[in-house]
This record gives sequence, structure tokens and C-alpha cells, in this order.
Amino acid sequence: MNRLSLNQWTTKRWTVAEAVDGCVRHGVGAIGLWRQDVAEQGLDETVKLVQAAGLRVSSLCRGGFLTGSDPLPDNRRAVDEAAELGASCLVLVVGGLPGVVPGEPLGAFSRDLAGARDRVAEGLAALAPYAAEQGVRLALEPLHPMYCADRAVLSTLGQAIDLAEPYPPEVVGVVVDTFHLWWDPAVLGQIARAGERIASYQVCDFLCPLPADVLLGRGMMGDGVIDFAPLNRAVAEAGYTGDIEVEIFNADVWAADPDTVVTTMKARYAELIA
Amino acid sequence: MNRLSLNQWTTKRWTVAEAVDGCVRHGVGAIGLWRQDVAEQGLDETVKLVQAAGLRVSSLCRGGFLTGSDPLPDNRRAVDEAAELGASCLVLVVGGLPGVVPGEPLGAFSRDLAGARDRVAEGLAALAPYAAEQGVRLALEPLHPMYCADRAVLSTLGQAIDLAEPYPPEVVGVVVDTFHLWWDPAVLGQIARAGERIASYQVCDFLCPLPADVLLGRGMMGDGVIDFAPLNRAVAEAGYTGDIEVEIFNADVWAADPDTVVTTMKARYAELIA
Repeated sequence: MNRLSLNQWTTKRWTVAEAVDGCVRHGVGAIGLWRQDVAEQGLDETVKLVQAAGLRVSSLCRGGFLTGSDPLPDNRRAVDEAAELGASCLVLVVGGLPGVVPGEPLGAFSRDLAGARDRVAEGLAALAPYAAEQGVRLALEPLHPMYCADRAVLSTLGQAIDLAEPYPPEVVGVVVDTFHLWWDPAVLGQIARAGERIASYQVCDFLCPLPADVLLGRGMMGDGVIDFAPLNRAVAEAGYTGDIEVEIFNADVWAADPDTVVTTMKARYAELIA
Repeated sequence: MNRLSLNQWTTKRWTVAEAVDGCVRHGVGAIGLWRQDVAEQGLDETVKLVQAAGLRVSSLCRGGFLTGSDPLPDNRRAVDEAAELGASCLVLVVGGLPGVVPGEPLGAFSRDLAGARDRVAEGLAALAPYAAEQGVRLALEPLHPMYCADRAVLSTLGQAIDLAEPYPPEVVGVVVDTFHLWWDPAVLGQIARAGERIASYQVCDFLCPLPADVLLGRGMMGDGVIDFAPLNRAVAEAGYTGDIEVEIFNADVWAADPDTVVTTMKARYAELIA
């Protein structure tokens, strides 16, 4: 239980201050933060809050979107923020096809998937030295293939490791997120291959049927179709000993009382993950 | 243009007789049929219709669902029907997690994904000899990973080839469907690896954003995010010279006048596929 981390968007109604307070009250030792909420609370204020609470910052979400135009300045700022917060990693969601805007009808965009993947590699090459200087670990997050066009052209763990391999593991790691990867017939072998590159283990369930907005198909562990045991075991056997973050985007969870959500999260974590 | 095939569900409002007539009127030389529609028309009647029209039957959809209970009897009937129709292949959609019903809330079901995949291999081993006897080629269709839980635990082309490899290519082939596979970073190499195992090339686009029912996210070529050229080229270079079937599940396409749909299909096929 001491490795459990609350990703702040699991209790989306809470501000950073409220989420930090919630972690303390519920005995959760780590928190995953989101940049826009940190900005609202104030970066300095957030640093003070998490330090006063004695919380670890298991991740900062998120940098990336490397397929867009001029992605470096904002990613450097994200690295700076992660350094200030002492976050274990900065999660990178690499971006979809250039010009595709999530949730909006297609406008002018590029269908060049291979080219978009090349841009991700180039963007990473430009960002990694800066992250290394600041002592921030970048964490490449492969997203479920249903988000390939609009959110991340990085679709499998194997592809993420390929992308990370030119860099030292402490500079570029990978995120293992059960929702995104559970279906992959190669996933257990790729988790073993990732080894010390695993920068974050994020857990939540895959709902079936999916809701109308597929972004909100993440469910509380036990409410969906994922068999967590083999994934937990593979991540442990790969040597990962860091925080395990529960990150749920879900209309019902967001509508519920956050204290109830955290109580359920702890129970499900104890039953299915720990 | 002489390799273009109309999958019957692209013009879902048409009966088999109407679709056969539509192919003839529009100069489309092949048709992909669905078992339930063939049953409605009558199997013998359908055989007469396609023969009289001089159409090739590029595929029969579908057998499979090998993760369910007692799948063999119905799959043997599907093989018989494919033989009667002289179909180039019987498409197998292998089924999801045992007990998960597409479109329905989760009831009693199994989360054992690895076990479900084993059941598919066992079901195929039981079915393949019968198909070989009847001279019917089975075609394993990997489905997009978003359907892994409820429709097909077969999620990548590489996995489909692994499953097919114990059998002669003329007994067990694979389906290359652009909608299901476009995102896969390994797809071009796996198409080359598939070679003479490619039993069917199905084309349609991947819509973005996805509609509320993700099953209906298949769009007319050019209306979505897929770059068809590299996939067309890979399939050609792999040696596939068979029919190219347009299969679209889409509420707007289904609501449109079928003759208009076929006209658009021919134009888009000429522009993006041929």
C-alpha cells in the first residue's frame, strides 16, 4: 500500500491543494500531478504543499505532442516544472498525426504516419539533453492504438522502448499503463525487455463496452476486462519498485465524491494490484 | 478496377439479390457476402444469383467466435456454405473474452486473455482439417485492439500469422484490413511476412473522432486518417493479386442511397487504392 499513488485526475474535482490533503487524510504516500492544475495552484505553492505533506510526486503529466509545430519551448518549461516538483518523471504523450485535433472534425492534417513517428524521434533527440541537464526523467507513454490519429502515434511498448534505447534509462524511460497495453500479445515480453526503463506503472481498467467518448473508457480496477495479475507480476519481475499510480478518466468516477473514490481505489488496489 | 469487390454490408440496405444486381449494374466483378443475409436470400438461390451474374465471391463473413462454447458445429456449417458459394475464403473473427457479449454490459465472463488466445488456437486446430477437406480457405482476421475484449482476442497481423503458420497457406490465411491494422508500427513488415497467406485485402478508412459506437468507425476511403499508399504497395509486393474488398460499417453510409455509395466507392477506389 505504501507504493500507491493518486493521479490527480482520478479525483478531478479536487484542486491540487485538496488532492494533497486527500492523500494525507487517506494515507496515500504519492501523487501524480497535471501541469494545468499545478499552474492554477501555482508552481511554488504546489512545491510547498507536497513537501509539507511529505508526498512523493510520482509523475508530472504531461509533455510531448512532439508532432505539433515548435514543441520544444513548452516541453522545456514542462521539464523545468518537473524539476521544481521533484517529480519521478515527466510523462510524454507524443502527439497524433500533425494537424489532427482531439475531439474535433478533421481539418487540414497530414496522413503521413511514418513521418509523424520520425518527428517524435527528432523531438525526443532535441529534448533529452535538456532533461538530462535538469535531472528530469522523460517517460514515453505508448497510448492505446485507438488514439493513434489524434493523441499518440506511439502505440506499443515495444515501439516506446525502441525510441528510448539510444538514451540512458535514467534520461528516457517508458510508462506501462494497463489500459493502453493490456491487449498486446507481446506486452509481457516487452515489460521484461523494458526492465530499468520502466519509469511509471499506471493502473486502471478497460471498460467494455467503451463509452461514447473513448477517452473516458478508463475504469476503476475490477470494473473492466483487464486481468491485472500477469501485468503486475511482469512489472515486478522487470525490477520496478517505484510508485504505482491510479489514473482514471471516467465520467462516473469524476461525478462521485472524491473521498469515496479514494476509499474505493485503496480497496481495489489492495485486492487487485498490491 | 477489375479487382474491386463490394462487401455486402457496405450497402447494408440491399438484399443479396439487390447487391448482386448492383454489382452488375456498376461493373463491380466481385462481392463479399454475409452468412445471415445469404440465409435470408437462401443459400441455393444465392449460388444461382452470383453464378448467373458471373460474380466472384471474394469472401464469406463470417465464422469464428472460437472462444465461445461449442463453436465447431456452426463453423462447420459456415465452411459448407463457403464451399457452396465458391467463396475465396471464410473470414474468421475469433471472438473476445469468454462471456463478453458485444454491446452489452459485462455479466459473468473470464478475464483470462491468454487462455482465450489458447482456445482460439485449439478451435482452429479442430476446424482446419474440415476446411481443408471441403477445399475452403480459412482467413484469420486480426481486429483493432479496441475490440479485443468483445470481438477478437486476435489483435495484430503478426499474431494472426503466428496462429496460421502450422497450416498450409491455402488452408489458413490471414485478412489484411486497413481499418484494423493501419496504426501498427510493425504492419508493413508483417504484410511482407504474410506473403501468400494473404487471403483477403479489405479496405476502408478509420474515422477520427470515432463515433459513439466504435463498431461504426469505418469510413469511405479518403474520409478518415489512413495513408493507403504504403499499405497498398506492401500488399502488392507481398504477391497478393486477389480481390480488394470495400467493407464499411457506418451509419451515414448505411443511410445513403446504395447506388450513390457504390458510385463513390468506385471513385475513391480508383483514386486511393487501385
